[in-house]
Amino acid sequence: MSFYDKKFTLGVLGGGQLGRMLIQDAISINLRVSVLDPDENAPCKEIAHEFVQGDFKDYDTVMNFGRDKDLITIEIEHVSIEALKDLKEMGVKVYPQPEVLEVIQDKGLQKQFYTDNDIPTAPYKLIDGRDEITRNSDFLPCMQKMRKGGYDGKGVTPVRSLEDLSTAFDAPSVMEKMVDFEKEISVIVARNPKGQVRAYPVVELEFNPKANLVEFLFCPAQISNDIEARAEQIAIDVANAFQVVGLLAVEMFLTKEGEILVNEVAPRPHNSGHQSIEGNYTSQFAQHLRAILDLPLGDTGIIRPTVMLNLLGEENHTGAADYTGLEDVMAMDGVYLHLYGKSDTKSYRKMGHVTVMREDAKEAHRIAENVKTRLKVRSK
Amino acid sequence: MSFYDKKFTLGVLGGGQLGRMLIQDAISINLRVSVLDPDENAPCKEIAHEFVQGDFKDYDTVMNFGRDKDLITIEIEHVSIEALKDLKEMGVKVYPQPEVLEVIQDKGLQKQFYTDNDIPTAPYKLIDGRDEITRNSDFLPCMQKMRKGGYDGKGVTPVRSLEDLSTAFDAPSVMEKMVDFEKEISVIVARNPKGQVRAYPVVELEFNPKANLVEFLFCPAQISNDIEARAEQIAIDVANAFQVVGLLAVEMFLTKEGEILVNEVAPRPHNSGHQSIEGNYTSQFAQHLRAILDLPLGDTGIIRPTVMLNLLGEENHTGAADYTGLEDVMAMDGVYLHLYGKSDTKSYRKMGHVTVMREDAKEAHRIAENVKTRLKVRSK
Repeated sequence: MSFYDKKFTLGVLGGGQLGRMLIQDAISINLRVSVLDPDENAPCKEIAHEFVQGDFKDYDTVMNFGRDKDLITIEIEHVSIEALKDLKEMGVKVYPQPEVLEVIQDKGLQKQFYTDNDIPTAPYKLIDGRDEITRNSDFLPCMQKMRKGGYDGKGVTPVRSLEDLSTAFDAPSVMEKMVDFEKEISVIVARNPKGQVRAYPVVELEFNPKANLVEFLFCPAQISNDIEARAEQIAIDVANAFQVVGLLAVEMFLTKEGEILVNEVAPRPHNSGHQSIEGNYTSQFAQHLRAILDLPLGDTGIIRPTVMLNLLGEENHTGAADYTGLEDVMAMDGVYLHLYGKSDTKSYRKMGHVTVMREDAKEAHRIAENVKTRLKVRSK
Repeated sequence: MSFYDKKFTLGVLGGGQLGRMLIQDAISINLRVSVLDPDENAPCKEIAHEFVQGDFKDYDTVMNFGRDKDLITIEIEHVSIEALKDLKEMGVKVYPQPEVLEVIQDKGLQKQFYTDNDIPTAPYKLIDGRDEITRNSDFLPCMQKMRKGGYDGKGVTPVRSLEDLSTAFDAPSVMEKMVDFEKEISVIVARNPKGQVRAYPVVELEFNPKANLVEFLFCPAQISNDIEARAEQIAIDVANAFQVVGLLAVEMFLTKEGEILVNEVAPRPHNSGHQSIEGNYTSQFAQHLRAILDLPLGDTGIIRPTVMLNLLGEENHTGAADYTGLEDVMAMDGVYLHLYGKSDTKSYRKMGHVTVMREDAKEAHRIAENVKTRLKVRSK
């Protein structure tokens, strides 16, 4: 059965903004999408062809959701791997593969995977709880990352010295040597079941230090051709090591010495690829669909320089969302608004993003800074 | 209430491909869309926030559909004008305005409007039926256009001499002097309630002679700067004469003598703007939403040269649609597929379109010709 057939259905675990943007591209190829999410107000709720309310971490829920689907994918990693494994056993196609998700879901296994596959990454130690930080104080300063359940800047905290112990997690985690990086960069790689691989050009990320979330993205990254080529090759190596099908977003540190270290990966569309909707020949969402449907991968080339700005809920604003400055921003040429359909805002919640595309990268940057000043999400 | 509010709903009369692509852009601005269409398998059926099955030509159906909407628009002209007028009277915003639709819906009134407003158009006569063609034989060769109900190449027929009388329509129609044109061109103009107007660059259309439907579109058009400027000005003049809110697609003939004549207009997103999804800074669908929501209009500039190809059902194929060559076409770089979600094909039915975007316009044309050879829609 072909993907454009009315009876063919793609099941997506997770109904947030990534699923929403995936559906926007699925419409263009007649692909029917069914979404599973616990939130009855999930961003995909009203636009999915079918929406099922339920917990994607629950074995039975995922089994029931998945058994009649032709293909399953995810837009969040924290799902029932056991159910996905059993669905795969039953003959349902599951991309990314549950075995890949299993490694990535656990930041300890993920680090071990890099070591085993000669992928450059920062030195680390695996610990079971807070007391082990004291015993490994020679390893400080470090970033402590919970092995499981972290998401969107949560589950990660700096431990610069033992004085930070009170804010450290008392849970199985990775202690990762703090990297004195020059830039954070990312490469999104697509790989289909035939093994065809295409990488997007490197983008540069600027984080909001308070929220530990991407705030600005610059495409192309301001780096040398040599670094561009090395970063792309490392990202392709990681995708091939996993033999992943679908997208793999590879976040990397570029150190002051010019070393490139893999920070972490996500086997799905990713915040570091949102600029591709307008700025690259193939959007990451269309590319993810091509990859999991075993179609030829699209051109990843840059059409025009872009700057992407995440639209984060203002600090200390919780409740029904109100946007100020929308009209100001829409009056600026080459500015693309993407709202995620979340009715409630909270501090630093990702409520949308804005992409600025101009022929001149510096002008795009200036406009994006201007957008940041004007556009605010507050509670009513 | 703001357009992004969950309680704000845009009602769209018509649920075909234009509505479908409008919804794809509405998602990006959190705009809730409710669609009215008589076909239970309409392209918008499964992706609209709400779908109401019913006849948009029926007064009561449109009244019931429209009374709780915040804003009404159309994606087809042949709707109940009376209902739209009464809804407007009741305080529902209706764009394009019913008065504009009323003129455009009737090709006779439309021609009269051009004459009254000094808009250049081909000479014409209004007739009530076939016998009047005989009486006006000195006006041949002409195109006979039914005053009402024509759509997608239907309701239009050439009457070169009285020998063509048997295929002429016996209905109120316009006899329009046949124009010996060099090119058919189109300009889409957007106008918002504040009176802001922005025109898209001129595109060039190539028709399939058998189906009288657009087959290829070239953006930018291969015309002189002088013709570009004149065509744009005429299109803006027409939009201002109508004081239309929303898009107005103005199709024009460029004669061999360099004269520009308005052929006909459509107050909505139009086939001659499909390339704008990828090829212009603002897609025509996003622009239509901006215009009817009284938001600032977006940049209409060209990002890259594009060629659009309509994907028409193969002649004499009727029934469940099957696509051949999809993978071949998806393997070509810079090629964008848009399938309209129609399960059944028939001769020359618009089943989708393909846009080719390359830096080099000639290369885009070559690729589009290649796509036409490979990609076919047949019945199973």
